[in-house]
Amino acid sequence: MSESTVTVFVCVSCRRRLGDCDDAFTLPGRDLAEALRSRLQQGGHADVVVTPVDCLAVCKRPCTVALSGADKWTYLIGDLDPQLHVEEIVATALSLGASGNGIVPWRERPASFRKGVIARVPPITAKDDRQIFIPESVES
Amino acid sequence: MSESTVTVFVCVSCRRRLGDCDDAFTLPGRDLAEALRSRLQQGGHADVVVTPVDCLAVCKRPCTVALSGADKWTYLIGDLDPQLHVEEIVATALSLGASGNGIVPWRERPASFRKGVIARVPPITAKDDRQIFIPESVES
Repeated sequence: MSESTVTVFVCVSCRRRLGDCDDAFTLPGRDLAEALRSRLQQGGHADVVVTPVDCLAVCKRPCTVALSGADKWTYLIGDLDPQLHVEEIVATALSLGASGNGIVPWRERPASFRKGVIARVPPITAKDDRQIFIPESVES
Repeated sequence: MSESTVTVFVCVSCRRRLGDCDDAFTLPGRDLAEALRSRLQQGGHADVVVTPVDCLAVCKRPCTVALSGADKWTYLIGDLDPQLHVEEIVATALSLGASGNGIVPWRERPASFRKGVIARVPPITAKDDRQIFIPESVES
């Protein structure tokens, strides 16, 4: 795994309700994980890895992914659709991999990234050195 | 840093509005970070580190923290108050450190942890091995 490898964790537990019935739903994260893998195989982006996980605990904004890289900020993004957002997720992963610290400049963020951020987490190696952090609020 | 070290990233950008005015707010994360550090110094919990960060991008649920440990799931928890939740955050960090994978059993979770989860993220080392993951929905 190279320094620029990015893992896209895809929540495959997210339920998207069909109509008003609680018992009728789809699990769109499974389709999203498959679509991302298929797209990445076609594109030859070996530095982006797709890993399905059973729950990212963001149940109200399906589908959800987390994009993580070693020594980078992790971004959680929700409101994603397997039919609409595969290209944007791949672009986001590549931008995150190319960045030094995982913080992708606002102008490089696709719409789904700008609108869908649930949270972000510093790398475990981050120190109390706040001047290196760029608040999201400054970028938006 | 030992294997069980847990970092509590405290968002110090979270704004808590005072009344209905957008321009009147406090920054309770700063007090929370200070209160946690003071509490940990008293308690001698060297394996819990408090790191203020400028934005976790969970602006609607102040204060927010992220609890991270090497090779463990990271949990983001919001709706925290520096006057009310310091002991529960410390207890959560210690439980997370004592756990093998960062997933704290439901019965061990304080109320602020049960109610405040924003999201969780697998460790970067996680593989597509879903049977080892315990969905949050099973526990709740």
